[in-house]
Amino acid sequence: MRTLGIVVEYNPMHNGHVYHLQQSKKVSNCDAVVAVMSGHFLQRGEPALTDKWSRTDMALANGVDLVLELPVAYAVQPAEWFAYGAVATLQATGVVDALCFGSELGDVEPFLRAADILVNEPSGFTDQLQEYLKAGLTYPAAYAAAAGQAMTASRTSPSSSEAADWMAQPNNSLGLHYVMALRRLNSAIKPHTIARTQAGYHDTEAPEGSIASATAIRRLWTEEGTLETCAQYLPPSTLRILEQEHRFGRAPMSWDCYTRELIYRLHQLSPESIARHLEVTEGLEYRVKQALGQMTAQRVESLLEQLKTKRYTRTKLQRMLAHILLHHDKFHFGSDGLKKGPWYIRVLGFTDTGRALLKRMKQSAELPIVLSVNRDNYNLGGYCGLEADIRATSLYANAFGRWNARDAYRDYYESPRRHQSN
Amino acid sequence: MRTLGIVVEYNPMHNGHVYHLQQSKKVSNCDAVVAVMSGHFLQRGEPALTDKWSRTDMALANGVDLVLELPVAYAVQPAEWFAYGAVATLQATGVVDALCFGSELGDVEPFLRAADILVNEPSGFTDQLQEYLKAGLTYPAAYAAAAGQAMTASRTSPSSSEAADWMAQPNNSLGLHYVMALRRLNSAIKPHTIARTQAGYHDTEAPEGSIASATAIRRLWTEEGTLETCAQYLPPSTLRILEQEHRFGRAPMSWDCYTRELIYRLHQLSPESIARHLEVTEGLEYRVKQALGQMTAQRVESLLEQLKTKRYTRTKLQRMLAHILLHHDKFHFGSDGLKKGPWYIRVLGFTDTGRALLKRMKQSAELPIVLSVNRDNYNLGGYCGLEADIRATSLYANAFGRWNARDAYRDYYESPRRHQSN
Repeated sequence: MRTLGIVVEYNPMHNGHVYHLQQSKKVSNCDAVVAVMSGHFLQRGEPALTDKWSRTDMALANGVDLVLELPVAYAVQPAEWFAYGAVATLQATGVVDALCFGSELGDVEPFLRAADILVNEPSGFTDQLQEYLKAGLTYPAAYAAAAGQAMTASRTSPSSSEAADWMAQPNNSLGLHYVMALRRLNSAIKPHTIARTQAGYHDTEAPEGSIASATAIRRLWTEEGTLETCAQYLPPSTLRILEQEHRFGRAPMSWDCYTRELIYRLHQLSPESIARHLEVTEGLEYRVKQALGQMTAQRVESLLEQLKTKRYTRTKLQRMLAHILLHHDKFHFGSDGLKKGPWYIRVLGFTDTGRALLKRMKQSAELPIVLSVNRDNYNLGGYCGLEADIRATSLYANAFGRWNARDAYRDYYESPRRHQSN
Repeated sequence: MRTLGIVVEYNPMHNGHVYHLQQSKKVSNCDAVVAVMSGHFLQRGEPALTDKWSRTDMALANGVDLVLELPVAYAVQPAEWFAYGAVATLQATGVVDALCFGSELGDVEPFLRAADILVNEPSGFTDQLQEYLKAGLTYPAAYAAAAGQAMTASRTSPSSSEAADWMAQPNNSLGLHYVMALRRLNSAIKPHTIARTQAGYHDTEAPEGSIASATAIRRLWTEEGTLETCAQYLPPSTLRILEQEHRFGRAPMSWDCYTRELIYRLHQLSPESIARHLEVTEGLEYRVKQALGQMTAQRVESLLEQLKTKRYTRTKLQRMLAHILLHHDKFHFGSDGLKKGPWYIRVLGFTDTGRALLKRMKQSAELPIVLSVNRDNYNLGGYCGLEADIRATSLYANAFGRWNARDAYRDYYESPRRHQSN
């Protein structure tokens, strides 16, 4: 059984994801699939539309055999650490043969060449990166520009702008970091990529046909207040699960659901205390305090509106707010902390095939496998480990429309979700 | 102009308070009144029904000439520190001649005798107090019992139980601590007391006639959802102010309004971090964590229900929750911190007579007078000083029905309320 590893958020899982998954299996010649999935907070710094168990159900119903949770300490991070956490988790299973990711480029060769150069941090790279950052570029743009220069210097790319251009595209950037993480880990996992030709990640308009971006689908649901118009873009299982979560008062969740908690925290903390959180850089703590007083509505959206400038991407600002809300301080959740992880393999669900993989993992896994959270393992990884995932769940559940005290502790009592193999 | 000092919460100001105020002026032979009033969180650990500016308006409309805010660091405290903060504030004005408080006893002599003994912490008193606490008595009961013994030992009281009995009554207990604070400060302010014959503090039923307890009035309003049935117990000005605050979406406030913020905070903090807050004693941090999971509704009332035991009064538990919610840690807000204050005299409002008092205070005051909060004075008293009052306002406003970003900063832009003299 050849096993494919993928990195996903499935927020929510739609037809494009299903198509991508089928293609990935084909390209990599795999018959089993392990997905590392973000939990309740996502890479762009947003709360997930529905909780991690419902998104696990979507994945298992549509071709994934084993869903592992990417610890929140890695999930809400720039490409480098997000990719490292995800790839290291796949590597730690000891059963993954191939990794496939979507990219604008659609050809794995440039990724391999770039990773080989960049993984060794060529001389001058870091200085160049800092210079671009000082010049006002966002981190992804600065990274791409510095990387482009390094590539030209090493004669790997004909021109620095050519390399910088492709690396600056969001899926290419993530993909590059996946391949670099594989190199760093001396992994035998073979990388593949397939082109993302359909709806781009950020497309917000609802297209004709059966495929739309997750962003467009979320917007349709939250703005129109009904799932009807989303149905054409979703597998029936996803639609059913979203309807069920809505009925249970657990969806759709968004930043605006957490306004009370976030505003409370921002008011209670001094600028100095705000500055202790991840992504609070360059005096942003003062900007946050100022923006608080300029909000025109009791909505996080209004805060983001006041915070935004050309200098900071929405993603950067959202991640910063998520870190403040979730108590992700620079001390525990910075590079020094993340270098020590990941600390465990958290299983969210599996099919029959997934169960077979788990059986093999009993021998092959390089990290403790967490099937259920309990008194003995809840503190794996310490403050930025499993505890942080549990805290994120507590917060996530606090805003449910139909509140239940138990939902805050679901990590403790929810067994891995099980599905029959497809 | 002889000036009376009183200590109030006016939550809300009702006919009983007006009567008490008139009697107090008579008994003390004063013509001007300075009130020290709790802000947004009260001695029993509850959020106030309406904000401190509206309660200032009630006071000024009904016979008080100058309203000063008791810093929240003292306001949410057991009798000893509550009384000390209030009396020290009155003393610091330099214009107060007399202090009058309501008591079950109604005679000031026993207070004077007891204070003279207890202010010197007679030998064995502290040990005795600790023993009673260990035996399971609540703090007020243990204090009264130990004090009773000290009184008998010094032959000031015929029997220890007689003294313990009167001291255990809530208004007597507060009164005793007012007189002790006067002694500690070597104050020339002359204490008086008048009997509280009408509705007791905790009476919750609505009586015939024009006088009901504040507790009963609050319950009538919040439970019946209308102010109509409260009207008979309130001066017309109070009724008008409550109606206005309700219209503005700023009242009635209660613990249940702050459930989202409190639950969020309790979930995010570890037991060890919870234990750093004031009043979290004897492993209560674990009890809090346990109670969280047993809540049957998303209401602080449900948490209090789960927390309560014979050992802890509701007041103790409410204060503990307020301290956790407001970031009142043992380090800053404990005795060592409070001994250094109060740090300022915060003016919430005044009448023409009050303005004359303020003019005299320019010469006589022993602490900075804060008429408006601004960049230069907001950090008077540091983390447990004016900043803490401002933080309490931010939290208080976060739950308003009609939210406005400016309400969180009202301390900065609200000038002292002004009323023509009565």
